[in-house]
Amino acid sequence: MQNFAFYNPVKILFGKGQIANIATEIPTDAKILVIYGGGSIKTNGVYEQVKAALTGRDFLEFGGVEANPHLETLLKAVELIRAEGINFLLAVGGGSVVDGTKFIAAAVNFEGDPWDILAKQTPVKSALPFGAVLTLPATGSEMNTASVVTKWETKEKLFFSSPFVFPKFSVLDPETTYSLPMRQVSNGIVDAYTHVMEQYLTYPVNAPLQDRMAESILKTLIEEGPKTIADIHDYDARANVMWCATLALNGLIGVGVPQDWTTHMIGHELTALHGIDHAQTLAIVLPNTMTVRRDRKREKLLQYADRVWGLVDGTEEQRIDQAIAKTRDFFEAVGVRTKLSDYGVGLDVIPLISDRFEKRGFVALGEHQDVTPKVVAQILTLCA
Amino acid sequence: MQNFAFYNPVKILFGKGQIANIATEIPTDAKILVIYGGGSIKTNGVYEQVKAALTGRDFLEFGGVEANPHLETLLKAVELIRAEGINFLLAVGGGSVVDGTKFIAAAVNFEGDPWDILAKQTPVKSALPFGAVLTLPATGSEMNTASVVTKWETKEKLFFSSPFVFPKFSVLDPETTYSLPMRQVSNGIVDAYTHVMEQYLTYPVNAPLQDRMAESILKTLIEEGPKTIADIHDYDARANVMWCATLALNGLIGVGVPQDWTTHMIGHELTALHGIDHAQTLAIVLPNTMTVRRDRKREKLLQYADRVWGLVDGTEEQRIDQAIAKTRDFFEAVGVRTKLSDYGVGLDVIPLISDRFEKRGFVALGEHQDVTPKVVAQILTLCA
Repeated sequence: MQNFAFYNPVKILFGKGQIANIATEIPTDAKILVIYGGGSIKTNGVYEQVKAALTGRDFLEFGGVEANPHLETLLKAVELIRAEGINFLLAVGGGSVVDGTKFIAAAVNFEGDPWDILAKQTPVKSALPFGAVLTLPATGSEMNTASVVTKWETKEKLFFSSPFVFPKFSVLDPETTYSLPMRQVSNGIVDAYTHVMEQYLTYPVNAPLQDRMAESILKTLIEEGPKTIADIHDYDARANVMWCATLALNGLIGVGVPQDWTTHMIGHELTALHGIDHAQTLAIVLPNTMTVRRDRKREKLLQYADRVWGLVDGTEEQRIDQAIAKTRDFFEAVGVRTKLSDYGVGLDVIPLISDRFEKRGFVALGEHQDVTPKVVAQILTLCA
Repeated sequence: MQNFAFYNPVKILFGKGQIANIATEIPTDAKILVIYGGGSIKTNGVYEQVKAALTGRDFLEFGGVEANPHLETLLKAVELIRAEGINFLLAVGGGSVVDGTKFIAAAVNFEGDPWDILAKQTPVKSALPFGAVLTLPATGSEMNTASVVTKWETKEKLFFSSPFVFPKFSVLDPETTYSLPMRQVSNGIVDAYTHVMEQYLTYPVNAPLQDRMAESILKTLIEEGPKTIADIHDYDARANVMWCATLALNGLIGVGVPQDWTTHMIGHELTALHGIDHAQTLAIVLPNTMTVRRDRKREKLLQYADRVWGLVDGTEEQRIDQAIAKTRDFFEAVGVRTKLSDYGVGLDVIPLISDRFEKRGFVALGEHQDVTPKVVAQILTLCA
């Protein structure tokens, strides 16, 4: 096992009716900004629950945060916060709203151009405190320090992380997910699954507990994910997928082990260039990352084949082939297509992505830092 | 899944050489009290590492905290802290030192008799901040809010918990465990294993991720525990057991599920009355709790038999019998005896324990709150 530091002070309030408890988590004298997305919370009852919980409290609203939240939109919230003296934020929505709120929280007191937080990775020195009411299990943003923001003007989708943007609390009420469009339910399952794979499918470092915990999440998603699609009111299935998605990316399963993230880095470019949903890009790329990297990931691929899919017969190559096929089939089975052509994108995207990576000084990705632009092109070629 | 709240802000510094990093976790102007046990840290190099890490810092020492830390001893530390104006504590040792430090931290500003924190469960309103350098993986105290203290005068071993006594940080360096007496290594494995069982072996509430994470710890302890005994310098095995012991009782696997703790409550009495090591009492009691409660725990016993021990053949009764036997055999195999008679204790202990429970107004234990004193007597009878 590798040395590590682990720290995660996010308070989780999980279950039916937990939105009612948010007021006790927010300082009584706070001036609150409730931040949300396209307005679905106003039709599914979540907005009413939040408003009821904040009765008597001083709050304003900022709606319209997009999927893959836009820098341009988030900066409007920053202006509002400065003008109104807001000192506590409440994100109500999915991963994009939480990610956007993290950026807003960090940008309010940032000196200089806030885009530098992402483009230049300028360290954040403080952030407004905030909480989250999660309505879409997928990104894990509700219990980590990561945020991805898109600069719409240049179609750049970039990442930042800072210990200052841990949510103070996150409410996870599975009932808030009943009204999600099926596409978002499907995407959430694939997103959480791929988060685990990025931290698990690398090379062994004798960390059996981390391996087994990662496999626990994968197996639970395989078992419970389809139930959330078959019966949208299956509370336990919704709860189990929601908890899986949070633990997939709260840092725990990734301690002391190498991590990959190749699939995400490629996927972000597909979203930025073609607007393909984040999880859809992962479903396209992951099986082909597994194929191209099969020799570098051989031992873990065989372990994954055995423990997650029960594949123990046949040669090593056959078991690996089957494990990759099972992964792709699972994504398709929960409703996410796995080819670029399914989204009307051709292989002419490859030079565009290579060009973007080169311009950013990109050298190599992956747990061995040997996924060069040439390897990225190999992976994308298989995505056709 | 049941509703839950989860919050654990302990920072973990894990791995070789991490003691060197403690100074950055302690406020520079802190007046520190280093608290330790019987002095083993002075012969195994840990004390020197701590002292080197605290070079230039203002610190005093308080040694002599016993296994099952005594109220009487801990109160002497409280006096010293008050007299010297100490404002940060550093526990260096095993679970007893960490538990003792939690009590000291809570007692310093407590109004009234500090024993009331345990005997009357009077809520703690504040505590001194403290960190821990763990040298014995077992209790999980390094990443939770629980503490068990013994009043030597009356031989009472009682428990308290408070969110104010989360360690600020805990250092887990597996190399510090190399010099442990084998009895403590063995005990640690049994202690961690039983912590998982208390949260896992109850009844199903459709929480498959919690179940699998619990099983992950059990399987890793079964696999790695014996390696720590076979080769005391097997770093990875020590690391894996150490991380298992922490995650066994940091709250995570117990969220949203019922919990038992019958075995612990009975075990505490055996320690208080006869001085049997904590883990030894668990090794004695757990297999018999499983036997007496087999009908109430049937579904989880069968799941445990299958997933942890691979027992799938035979009748339900046979599989349960085998799973209980495997559990007892595992404890014996790692060097912890499983009968009261192994420790020279007879069944005359039963009325003594029943009497003590009754005097404390005890009604019933367990996940169904139906383990009455009569059931406790049944369990103890099988422990002979």
